[in-house]
Amino acid sequence: MSALEPVLGGHVTTPRGFLAGAVSAGLKSVPGALDLGLLYSERDCAAAGVFTRNQVRSAPVQVTEARVRAGKLRAVVVNSGCANALTGAAGIRDAETMAALAAAKLGLAPAEVAVASTGVTGVALPIEKIRDALPALALAADGGPSFARAIMTTDTVPKEVAYSVQTPAGSYAIGGCAKGSGMIHPDMATMLAYVTTDAALAPDLLQAIMRETADATFNMLTVDGDTSCSDTLLVFANGAAGLPIIEAVSAEEATFRAALMAVCTHLARELARDGEGASRLIEVEVSGAASLDDARRVARTVASSALVKTAIAGCDPNWGRILVAAGRSGAVVDQERARLLLQGQLLFDRGNVVPFDEAKMRSRMDAPEIAIRLDLGLGVVSAKGWGCDLTTDYVHINADYTT
Amino acid sequence: MSALEPVLGGHVTTPRGFLAGAVSAGLKSVPGALDLGLLYSERDCAAAGVFTRNQVRSAPVQVTEARVRAGKLRAVVVNSGCANALTGAAGIRDAETMAALAAAKLGLAPAEVAVASTGVTGVALPIEKIRDALPALALAADGGPSFARAIMTTDTVPKEVAYSVQTPAGSYAIGGCAKGSGMIHPDMATMLAYVTTDAALAPDLLQAIMRETADATFNMLTVDGDTSCSDTLLVFANGAAGLPIIEAVSAEEATFRAALMAVCTHLARELARDGEGASRLIEVEVSGAASLDDARRVARTVASSALVKTAIAGCDPNWGRILVAAGRSGAVVDQERARLLLQGQLLFDRGNVVPFDEAKMRSRMDAPEIAIRLDLGLGVVSAKGWGCDLTTDYVHINADYTT
Repeated sequence: MSALEPVLGGHVTTPRGFLAGAVSAGLKSVPGALDLGLLYSERDCAAAGVFTRNQVRSAPVQVTEARVRAGKLRAVVVNSGCANALTGAAGIRDAETMAALAAAKLGLAPAEVAVASTGVTGVALPIEKIRDALPALALAADGGPSFARAIMTTDTVPKEVAYSVQTPAGSYAIGGCAKGSGMIHPDMATMLAYVTTDAALAPDLLQAIMRETADATFNMLTVDGDTSCSDTLLVFANGAAGLPIIEAVSAEEATFRAALMAVCTHLARELARDGEGASRLIEVEVSGAASLDDARRVARTVASSALVKTAIAGCDPNWGRILVAAGRSGAVVDQERARLLLQGQLLFDRGNVVPFDEAKMRSRMDAPEIAIRLDLGLGVVSAKGWGCDLTTDYVHINADYTT
Repeated sequence: MSALEPVLGGHVTTPRGFLAGAVSAGLKSVPGALDLGLLYSERDCAAAGVFTRNQVRSAPVQVTEARVRAGKLRAVVVNSGCANALTGAAGIRDAETMAALAAAKLGLAPAEVAVASTGVTGVALPIEKIRDALPALALAADGGPSFARAIMTTDTVPKEVAYSVQTPAGSYAIGGCAKGSGMIHPDMATMLAYVTTDAALAPDLLQAIMRETADATFNMLTVDGDTSCSDTLLVFANGAAGLPIIEAVSAEEATFRAALMAVCTHLARELARDGEGASRLIEVEVSGAASLDDARRVARTVASSALVKTAIAGCDPNWGRILVAAGRSGAVVDQERARLLLQGQLLFDRGNVVPFDEAKMRSRMDAPEIAIRLDLGLGVVSAKGWGCDLTTDYVHINADYTT
């Protein structure tokens, strides 16, 4: 039997053999704010990545994707405050330089270092500030939390998690951190996310599991419908736990999948909860769909509907908006077969409106998490999606966020 | 030669042989507000319709679409304040009753009367209020403006227009009105729109022209990305101008298309300008696309991007958001070939950032209309789309709008 346990205060360097650190390079407008982070595996590892599908891709995404494919990654250097996107050939050179500087510091080949940048687009990366700041960056086994802070932009809190996984052969850990608050929508949710494990897996298996897990977690997350040119999810597996390599189609693989799903689900939920201006996390669970694609479409469409999001901001049980959003999702939806529950209260039952006490319903909606459950009544497939409410603060943040 | 001239103060009953009127039936919360309207052709006419593609369809949409197909429409009765949507079999009966009441008043068969309802979903239509109010509704040749007011919900102003069309054979008129402010997105923009003309066309040709025109106008309009279950666009052509019937593939057809395009473009722009909470109209013109589908995708995606909309609310020349939105549209986009102009200012030229004076740019953006011009540099196809900025007022309107 295998078991999965959250590690209290766990983070991206909780798994053995990973070090991280961060410094302030002066890229963010707040003096002294951490904005340059480095995550490093002390030993060779398998790495996999999932990237934005936006056709406008930042320079670091272009550089890093090629390196993931080459299969030799051991570190990632990340800055916040500038996305190094829409920056042309100079941007590519800057991204390569940033990785090369980190590689020199770590004694690695440049091709072993991934690079990511997040922040404003269309502005040249201040590469000299990064060159100047990098020497002072100290790596440590408890450096995960600093790294998680350094990658934040409009996030109000860092997002970190780790699990300990007990298996018959021994235990390993899996940890992660993520940033992202606005410009978040599948595919991918706009974000940077890093997952580490001291389990051992071959890169191809790791890539396959990561892609499927991302589709069920980060790609089911929406804040504002916009996607970015910088989205990057990287996973590193360095085998430092000393356990046998996890083979495909094994009990160990199933356990690892569950552990990775737990890490990514946690991070996706925390990203939604901290969506720009958000006051409530929305979880949409769709069941009874005719297909997985349909279930996911409905969950994502409901979670991203401006009218659903504003109703939830106002504790307004305006449930019709939920069904109408489902109706435009592209999935098969039949109001005569659908059942809708909001905060556990049945509101619509296969074509019939269910009366409810509006005052009670409003008070149940004044909660930090809103549960929408929609049974389409057409099949047996389920999916979950996450989002957040839309408040006036979202508008303030994005109308005033500087170019 | 044919010519098109706007009619000063023109409206939906400017074309000959159309009457309209409105009363207050007590369906809106504001006492005395017009909320029940009737539009009627004094003679037989061709009618065509375009309806929501949302799979959750209101009762009036279900009733009316069947009647448009049967091809005998001469009138439409519309209420605001209640959408009669998600109301099951009782809702269908109410929609049929509402049409039958109007038919009896007009001496028409029920099948000759279309019906539409707009307002809150999931609430039974107060059909007795409509029965009580309808007798007092007076029809008049100058009743268009009252009708246009009666169909409004969160709209702040009515949207009406008419053109006079001079042709070698004589002149005719084309007029229209529309409502819609939130829950607006292709397809269709959430709205009710009615177009009348005293030109004569066969129903099939009218339907074909209406569909194509809707795709280039109302279906290029977005306010908040949500679509409704009530969207209905109807066009009536009664031939009262006494001109020969307009044949397909003729100079007269080309003129009629241009006139219908002018009416629908005007109404679509006015709907965008009056989007919920909007302070600015956004017009996105995409050129150089590889296909019409690509051009339209980019225009709609940019116009509906929450990040573009909030930047424009804040007069923030954050042009990177425009290109990044284009990149997620699904159309082919290559940053090395794209050129972007905002308010006439070139900001990005095929991979290169163009420096600009930020203070000047901010002041140019403090305008009622924002022009985004994006040349993809990949082909020769163009399209326009319309939207509006996203302000805190949108959130207030929709967080507080009652269920």
